[in-house]
Amino acid sequence: MIRFACDYDEGACPEILAALAATNLEQNPGYGEDPHSDRARALIREAIGRPDACVQFLVGGTQTNQTVIAAALRPFQGVIAATTGHINVHETGAIEATGHKVLALPDSEGKVRADGVDAYVKGHWADPSHEHMVQPAMVYISHPTEGGLLYSLSELEALRRVCDRHGLYLYLDGARLGYGLVSPDTDVTLRDIARLTDAFYIGGTKVGALFGEAAVLNHPALKKDFRYMIKRQGGMLAKGRLLGIQFETLFTDGLYTRIAKNAVDLAMVIRDALREKGIEFLYESPTNQQFPILPDGVVEELSDRYFFEGWGRVDEGHTAVRICTSWATPRESVEALLRDLLPLL
Amino acid sequence: MIRFACDYDEGACPEILAALAATNLEQNPGYGEDPHSDRARALIREAIGRPDACVQFLVGGTQTNQTVIAAALRPFQGVIAATTGHINVHETGAIEATGHKVLALPDSEGKVRADGVDAYVKGHWADPSHEHMVQPAMVYISHPTEGGLLYSLSELEALRRVCDRHGLYLYLDGARLGYGLVSPDTDVTLRDIARLTDAFYIGGTKVGALFGEAAVLNHPALKKDFRYMIKRQGGMLAKGRLLGIQFETLFTDGLYTRIAKNAVDLAMVIRDALREKGIEFLYESPTNQQFPILPDGVVEELSDRYFFEGWGRVDEGHTAVRICTSWATPRESVEALLRDLLPLL
Amino acid sequence: MIRFACDYDEGACPEILAALAATNLEQNPGYGEDPHSDRARALIREAIGRPDACVQFLVGGTQTNQTVIAAALRPFQGVIAATTGHINVHETGAIEATGHKVLALPDSEGKVRADGVDAYVKGHWADPSHEHMVQPAMVYISHPTEGGLLYSLSELEALRRVCDRHGLYLYLDGARLGYGLVSPDTDVTLRDIARLTDAFYIGGTKVGALFGEAAVLNHPALKKDFRYMIKRQGGMLAKGRLLGIQFETLFTDGLYTRIAKNAVDLAMVIRDALREKGIEFLYESPTNQQFPILPDGVVEELSDRYFFEGWGRVDEGHTAVRICTSWATPRESVEALLRDLLPLL
Amino acid sequence: MIRFACDYDEGACPEILAALAATNLEQNPGYGEDPHSDRARALIREAIGRPDACVQFLVGGTQTNQTVIAAALRPFQGVIAATTGHINVHETGAIEATGHKVLALPDSEGKVRADGVDAYVKGHWADPSHEHMVQPAMVYISHPTEGGLLYSLSELEALRRVCDRHGLYLYLDGARLGYGLVSPDTDVTLRDIARLTDAFYIGGTKVGALFGEAAVLNHPALKKDFRYMIKRQGGMLAKGRLLGIQFETLFTDGLYTRIAKNAVDLAMVIRDALREKGIEFLYESPTNQQFPILPDGVVEELSDRYFFEGWGRVDEGHTAVRICTSWATPRESVEALLRDLLPLL
Repeated sequence: MIRFACDYDEGACPEILAALAATNLEQNPGYGEDPHSDRARALIREAIGRPDACVQFLVGGTQTNQTVIAAALRPFQGVIAATTGHINVHETGAIEATGHKVLALPDSEGKVRADGVDAYVKGHWADPSHEHMVQPAMVYISHPTEGGLLYSLSELEALRRVCDRHGLYLYLDGARLGYGLVSPDTDVTLRDIARLTDAFYIGGTKVGALFGEAAVLNHPALKKDFRYMIKRQGGMLAKGRLLGIQFETLFTDGLYTRIAKNAVDLAMVIRDALREKGIEFLYESPTNQQFPILPDGVVEELSDRYFFEGWGRVDEGHTAVRICTSWATPRESVEALLRDLLPLL
Repeated sequence: MIRFACDYDEGACPEILAALAATNLEQNPGYGEDPHSDRARALIREAIGRPDACVQFLVGGTQTNQTVIAAALRPFQGVIAATTGHINVHETGAIEATGHKVLALPDSEGKVRADGVDAYVKGHWADPSHEHMVQPAMVYISHPTEGGLLYSLSELEALRRVCDRHGLYLYLDGARLGYGLVSPDTDVTLRDIARLTDAFYIGGTKVGALFGEAAVLNHPALKKDFRYMIKRQGGMLAKGRLLGIQFETLFTDGLYTRIAKNAVDLAMVIRDALREKGIEFLYESPTNQQFPILPDGVVEELSDRYFFEGWGRVDEGHTAVRICTSWATPRESVEALLRDLLPLL
Repeated sequence: MIRFACDYDEGACPEILAALAATNLEQNPGYGEDPHSDRARALIREAIGRPDACVQFLVGGTQTNQTVIAAALRPFQGVIAATTGHINVHETGAIEATGHKVLALPDSEGKVRADGVDAYVKGHWADPSHEHMVQPAMVYISHPTEGGLLYSLSELEALRRVCDRHGLYLYLDGARLGYGLVSPDTDVTLRDIARLTDAFYIGGTKVGALFGEAAVLNHPALKKDFRYMIKRQGGMLAKGRLLGIQFETLFTDGLYTRIAKNAVDLAMVIRDALREKGIEFLYESPTNQQFPILPDGVVEELSDRYFFEGWGRVDEGHTAVRICTSWATPRESVEALLRDLLPLL
Repeated sequence: MIRFACDYDEGACPEILAALAATNLEQNPGYGEDPHSDRARALIREAIGRPDACVQFLVGGTQTNQTVIAAALRPFQGVIAATTGHINVHETGAIEATGHKVLALPDSEGKVRADGVDAYVKGHWADPSHEHMVQPAMVYISHPTEGGLLYSLSELEALRRVCDRHGLYLYLDGARLGYGLVSPDTDVTLRDIARLTDAFYIGGTKVGALFGEAAVLNHPALKKDFRYMIKRQGGMLAKGRLLGIQFETLFTDGLYTRIAKNAVDLAMVIRDALREKGIEFLYESPTNQQFPILPDGVVEELSDRYFFEGWGRVDEGHTAVRICTSWATPRESVEALLRDLLPLL
């Protein structure tokens, strides 16, 4: 069975395992106050071009979202997200657990649009009953989105402008950020993201780390006492060194984007091969997740050798599936898949 | 500089690093639904003698406490703890973050006593204004305590009885459980703990794992939907295998207690040597944390070669310090310490 | 200026003022443990035909919703409501403040339909990632709805069945319940509601009381320790007698429905007169709120003599407004309105 | 049976009932945006000498405490209070319900002392683990305290200074403020309180209103969007006029202090008579609550004619009781009590 189920099917890239082994018996202070974490912070600040950024490491994405969002909002404020946004669907109410409503905007393809935000926020303040409604105070986007799509630079800039206009924070969930940065179809760099957002995170769990996300806080109000917030949310890792070592490794010699590129290259191979066969896709993803719409028989036929997640029936006879490559996917796995799949189409 | 700062100064015991490396490229489902996690669960259920227990793995102790306690309590209920209890002092309000008050009992040496619980709970229900006060519904203890002390079997049994009498859950924080189980002075076994508590956790972070705690839920009401609760609290690790592999390793061939014994043996060496010199201790700890009361000059004299935490001034001229050994402490470090310390006393 | 803005523009019906004055210097225990509250509870239990119900009085609707819902749900559970439901839109996140997500179902006219609930809940449990999503555990409906509509008896019975099938609580927000009970178009009685729901509340604030809602808890799990919950949510009125006296008055000699009938009768006068002129309505409400769609010019023309709330532009040139009658509306006000309005149509 | 149980045994002072009746059929906008509320706000701003203050009305004390405190604190911050403080004991965890820990300072007689605050906050920031502990950010005091005691002006000024030194908010719970202001033993005026605190509330429920508290916010950060916070906490009264009318009445022609004086005068009569008999008191209260320590037999002897609350056994044979007078207590009741009580001493 070859799994294309997700980008966290395997452990970590070998460089990380090696670094953990090499430093294992070092004695270090806990809670991210060790030299590895400091060095990782410095490397990230350099990579993103913001010497003023506050970089803190957390274990997982839901935890990071919950911690950043709850740190930013006052109790009666909410966060705008796409209806399909991760925080609105797949975090078991982790945001509500901190007392905040997710303000779901009907979305086009899982993206939050600047004009949609503008209309929503204007509508809020124009309503004579606005004190009876959750006050919008932050925009949450993911890049890539749940469907593997990317914001263009001009879309991000428009979101920044609408956030500035209305006094909203802009927060970017980068669980799969690496795969977005190396996409052939993107015009957005890591520095653009650092420049345009108030906070974002660089995903490690899905991009080669054993676990870990690097939260980057750009807005001064978000930096203050953020570590208290991590601890309060149960997210402060005792052996913070583990996060430091992993991000130190990922941000040395371009490892982060290099391993991401493997995933995207292979995803493009799959995409192009299926496109050639006339297969349609649920989303036109230029990243490591591909959502082809396949005949049910084909899906069933492959199911004993390949694992991918069903992504919903599209019509009588067709199902969208998610084929997910990762930093760890061998080229041979993709070749095997295509060898078995293409003849069925 | 040799650190006796805490039991998470180093990485993981070599067996765990080896197991992580050996399984690194296996493809596994996420979120703890992999074969390693299943096997670790089975091994723990066997070790604790409760085939009915629900075992779930979390990353850290604060997270585990927060998740178990919030899963157990109704909104207006609180958890009884010693004033010095970890949840009352050192978790940045992680319990209050879930909406619950910690009901701090003035403690004798950081332990919760059955008669103290009994008096408190009787007092609550006898008060005509009891609906205006947080309802006690759980007792939280740690074993070893913050001060390294252990509950005796009869103390635990008395707590169980008082909890039964008043309908309280009994929850044991086992962040350092391994060090308690192998103490020369204990009459409490892992099976006793599993038999007498409604929930407890087996600490990995401080006992040889890179990270991770195994929550054990014995009471049926706590088992139900506990995984939703983990996810909601931001504690569900994507690569749950990492926790499974670590506990699988720790609970194979007695590794968990074997490495704990190293720490306690060395702590006893320190204790005995200091006792012989007439040094007094803040707590008479039979576990891996020792709290000798040292002349200030001695503490300062050693401070450029050894790191231990100050634990409070005791009088003009004396300070209690915490000397903490761990699974990773080499005998040579202890010998060096005593060689340098004893002549100063 | 005559206001048809809402049903809480005035104070209280004269009987209530008189009762408050008559009892003013009585000395009574606080917090709802006085004889008036006891008698009000008994009167309500009789009126609803459930001698087993637990009746507790709260000050306002948002507070009641928040308290009942948070008392019922475990932390990771959510409440299903119509997208336009009061708890989803107009309570400034009071439900999320207690840690729970409102699961908004796209609605037809603001009603929650049994088949919609069934599909949603089935979809939840069928999803392999259901532990990553908020668990549906309660259905919230309002009767009348925000748009003045009523559930039929068969709709309520179908909701009861779907709740039983899936183990959901059914909770009915009766902020305007009186106006629903006396509608000429309803086949639902107070006893039906008490029989079919797990909890509901009888609205006082909008139906003749100075303030106050009577929460009725039918399900045993909701009754237990509910008063703790009220206090914890800041909702326990010191002089609970005030609530007791008001509901005692409202449920003596049929006052509650008698005053409600005045509002509905007058609303029907308005509806019929406008229908006759061919005016369309946003909702076909058989209760005290009417939502005619009027030409913009007409709305403006009346705006210096009559106050009603705009309810949204319908098209270029037309606006829906809400005309709200109440227990306090004099027939003369309605006659004046029609005298001024009808000639403009 | 004559009740000295508390200061909310009766309804409202006659002036308030009259004002409610006189305005009953006025049509007013809801939610505190009516002319009565505006006028009440203006009267209070004048009385306290702060034209810049934001005055908002809430229904009860727990609700007010919960709303002000949660509006002020960031999630990881806590509020310092006396161990016996109302928020620490008698609000069923209403503060924790909003996610915040009450940091209980061991108190002398229920008062928070400036030096105690100073030591606590310095200790917090000096602790290397301070990020693991709830950050102190506000001081909560009540005036009078639970035991009827008053802060002196110099004590309040010292608290203000320590709060300024450490960047803490100072918040004063004035549930019984009226009784404090008219005490013969106070040197603190309403203007002092308004000048020295960041927020406080003027209690109505216990001082002649049917219900209601006037929250006064002086610090700009607390004013912003405070009404959202009220709504979110379920505390926004639909017929806000009721609160406006009551405070308008209480702050016209000195009614608030005039009725408070009745209570304190009578309490002094009781105090002096008992002192003369050599009776000792649990607290030396100069306000409307008196806590004499009486022989058990005496308490029992009176129990069929007078109701007062037991306040704890003091020794074998003696019990402290609370005798509470109010705005509504008739002089005859006090005379009757003394006539029956004094001969027994």
